[in-house]
Amino acid sequence: MVGQVVVAAGAAVAGALAGKIFGAGGKGAKGDPVFSVAAAANYDHESEIEKYAHLAQIYPEVDAVDVKTPDNWIKRHPHMIRLTGKHPFNVEAPLPEMFDYGFIGPVNLHIVRNHGAVPKIQWETHKISFGGNVPKPFDIGMDELVAMPTETFPVLVTCAGNRRKEQNMIKKSIGFNWGPCGIGNTMWKGVPLRLLLNRAGIFKSGPGARFVCLAGPEGELPKSYDGQDGGPGSYGTSIDMETALDPTSDVILAFEQNGKRLQPDHGYPCRVIIPGYIGGRMIKFLCKVLVTDAESKNFYHFNDNRVLPVGVDAEMATAEGWWFKEEYIINNLNINGAIAYPQHDEVLPANESTYTIKGYAYSGGGRKVIRTEVSFDQGQSWTLANINVREKPRWAAGSSGDKAKHWCWCHWEYTVDAALIKGANEICFRAFDQSQNQMPERPTWNVMGMLNNPWYRVRVHSHPTGGVKFEHPTIAGPTPGGWMHKMAEEAGGELLWGWGGQGNPAAPQRAH
Amino acid sequence: MVGQVVVAAGAAVAGALAGKIFGAGGKGAKGDPVFSVAAAANYDHESEIEKYAHLAQIYPEVDAVDVKTPDNWIKRHPHMIRLTGKHPFNVEAPLPEMFDYGFIGPVNLHIVRNHGAVPKIQWETHKISFGGNVPKPFDIGMDELVAMPTETFPVLVTCAGNRRKEQNMIKKSIGFNWGPCGIGNTMWKGVPLRLLLNRAGIFKSGPGARFVCLAGPEGELPKSYDGQDGGPGSYGTSIDMETALDPTSDVILAFEQNGKRLQPDHGYPCRVIIPGYIGGRMIKFLCKVLVTDAESKNFYHFNDNRVLPVGVDAEMATAEGWWFKEEYIINNLNINGAIAYPQHDEVLPANESTYTIKGYAYSGGGRKVIRTEVSFDQGQSWTLANINVREKPRWAAGSSGDKAKHWCWCHWEYTVDAALIKGANEICFRAFDQSQNQMPERPTWNVMGMLNNPWYRVRVHSHPTGGVKFEHPTIAGPTPGGWMHKMAEEAGGELLWGWGGQGNPAAPQRAH
Repeated sequence: MVGQVVVAAGAAVAGALAGKIFGAGGKGAKGDPVFSVAAAANYDHESEIEKYAHLAQIYPEVDAVDVKTPDNWIKRHPHMIRLTGKHPFNVEAPLPEMFDYGFIGPVNLHIVRNHGAVPKIQWETHKISFGGNVPKPFDIGMDELVAMPTETFPVLVTCAGNRRKEQNMIKKSIGFNWGPCGIGNTMWKGVPLRLLLNRAGIFKSGPGARFVCLAGPEGELPKSYDGQDGGPGSYGTSIDMETALDPTSDVILAFEQNGKRLQPDHGYPCRVIIPGYIGGRMIKFLCKVLVTDAESKNFYHFNDNRVLPVGVDAEMATAEGWWFKEEYIINNLNINGAIAYPQHDEVLPANESTYTIKGYAYSGGGRKVIRTEVSFDQGQSWTLANINVREKPRWAAGSSGDKAKHWCWCHWEYTVDAALIKGANEICFRAFDQSQNQMPERPTWNVMGMLNNPWYRVRVHSHPTGGVKFEHPTIAGPTPGGWMHKMAEEAGGELLWGWGGQGNPAAPQRAH
Repeated sequence: MVGQVVVAAGAAVAGALAGKIFGAGGKGAKGDPVFSVAAAANYDHESEIEKYAHLAQIYPEVDAVDVKTPDNWIKRHPHMIRLTGKHPFNVEAPLPEMFDYGFIGPVNLHIVRNHGAVPKIQWETHKISFGGNVPKPFDIGMDELVAMPTETFPVLVTCAGNRRKEQNMIKKSIGFNWGPCGIGNTMWKGVPLRLLLNRAGIFKSGPGARFVCLAGPEGELPKSYDGQDGGPGSYGTSIDMETALDPTSDVILAFEQNGKRLQPDHGYPCRVIIPGYIGGRMIKFLCKVLVTDAESKNFYHFNDNRVLPVGVDAEMATAEGWWFKEEYIINNLNINGAIAYPQHDEVLPANESTYTIKGYAYSGGGRKVIRTEVSFDQGQSWTLANINVREKPRWAAGSSGDKAKHWCWCHWEYTVDAALIKGANEICFRAFDQSQNQMPERPTWNVMGMLNNPWYRVRVHSHPTGGVKFEHPTIAGPTPGGWMHKMAEEAGGELLWGWGGQGNPAAPQRAH
């Protein structure tokens, strides 16, 4: 059996190093452990990229809505739901439309979170500077970047605010109304950040080099701290050096999406992709990479992308310094998901005998979604839905091991006797990940309305035709409607769960 | 600022390697990424080990209960609660007694999960064999093992069945009645498994070498599969190669606990410690390490340590092959915790004006516990408790980063106006980890009753003295009592939540 072991050149080299550490010997001897990760475990997505070319298409014309905005040069899909008026462009696709594309979605239905006008950047002149506490600072242009070794793989990009509108029904958060499609699962191609850090002379974490700050263009945003990394008006954040250097974290500087150069809304010419993280740390229009001893001092690093405890509102957060407490930073996504079908206002006719419920789920940190479940009795019992669309995980594909990295959404479906649905008050959905983390029963409000992931509940109403009609909790953006919106209106505007409000999300019994 | 960067010898070597990969250049070039991890990030626990010597003490005499068992040579603490009769020894400490020791607990109050009689193994003659698909198989004796480089750090060992008795009140699982102290947080010293794998010629995962099987002595247990790794009657399991080789996973072959050689119940002379994992994979009395292409074929690898969905009972699990579905293996712990004070049957007198609620929390996979919360209104609102006892995390201590590994429990406390407690129906506790995973509101039954982690609820009852008396959900082991036990009795023996039973764990309103 020994003959079956593959001993590649890289392993032999690492072996020699490990031998040195071992040879240093003696109890408590400390060295910096050197190890290698088997790249062969990774499926070759590069070879399949051509079949996604149609999913990188640019919409043929500029949307009339954009004509009088600074973004009047960008061609956008008119189906995108605008969550902050016509400008800036903060959008999600209608969930069923996105879902119908399957595992890989089109670029022009992919979530966009813009803080202002999209910067007009030229490929030929754009430079990304690597500086801070590095032995060998350098600037790199796009042509030089794309000539470096690259990786191509699918990643789900998710706004931490996905499903935030539900939170806003409880109590107004400081964020706008994301529905359940603040996401996009596409193919990304880019250069591993660790290779660029290596080029700058950084090979491990240590004093002076504990964090990597990432920033977009100066002047993109209204607020700054004096002397912040990234410069005045930049949107920036940082990740820890260990994540940046670990090959299995798959942090890349991406320049292609679904096989084509990035579209302007998605960070042209280069954005950071940090799989398993919230989208808010995946800096678009990347300009600066700084190695530092402490976290980024960028205004938005502290005043955005946090989950504070319920009971802490915006005023208290600022007055009491909650934004700066390290416990409340969010990096990895949590387990989450939603029902795509039945969609809102869909009617299941009286004469249908079966129905196929469908939806998506994802988790953070590379964790695999292992169970997707539906309940027709409000959580008293649950039935497994079939996870029928899945990624090939990164880094440990052959081992089914804990270190396999699941960076994408999965799709699930469950075909059920229509009578069961017609007799139910609601359809509840929840998912579990490989660490047995599950979507909670009730939401817990937080001031930014982020990482909202309670059971996704679709209410079932009798319909004059004799069938039933479905109602989602909210409708993305400013459109009123949805059972949670109605509940909030009946409660005087806000449900105030956790703030003295009574009740819970369970659907009331209905007359049959 | 560049002068502040520490460039250690190890980094320079890794740098040269990374340079080679980089130099291989070209788009899509594949190499095995080699990287190093900064050992300097790790706090030196070895130097503080002497102060824990008193926590490694052996109880002075053999417990009378053991005299007529095969374990009549082992000196055990008489306070340990025996969960499976007098033999084999499956025990937990009374939670308040363990909790009062603080962060590091005594060895003889540490959880023990024995499948049969403790094997009598001699240090001098014991060998651990490294074989399977390795270029250089070898056997190693204990003296040789302890001469290798070691690591010392604290780890929480937790049975996946911690808090299982609550599950058994819903419906009898196939496991026995763990209370909330199926845990132990002690200092462990051992040799990194990766160094031993390196010695056997294994430096990375790949075909033929995807898993590491670990097994105890032959004949320890009644059941086997034909030809299982570990041999007939062995208790064995496997972990993936990536976890075994990753230095930051901290998998060690441990031979000391709290600074002394292992006690027999804890795996003398050598057990595996896999931080962040369920205890069931941390093989005691380690005899064999086998490198294989597929998971362990040991009987207990498949028929133990699984969380199957609710609705799958033991008969169905066997008939339909649920034990062999890869989704349901459990490795990492999930977020969990409990209230230590008030303890069961404790009385808060009428004249007390404040009370300090205390407890513990932990999570799996190295994730940090970031929020511990108590509710006096059954989850309508929550207040942060103070996490006042914490570990120094491994591997990224200086960065506060995502890769910092939290392998231990934390302690929390919350001092509250006694009137608030006296006016409540129950005290609810929940915790969150850094990935926003939270303890769920309701339990979900599973056939092994494992990883049970709903809100820990302590009911509050009026007491004749004018104060209040507290009631935990269950009492560990065979002792009846606790609100969940009473509810089950009233329901005819089992609550059957998820199996047609009605109701939920919320305490009813009480007369004040």
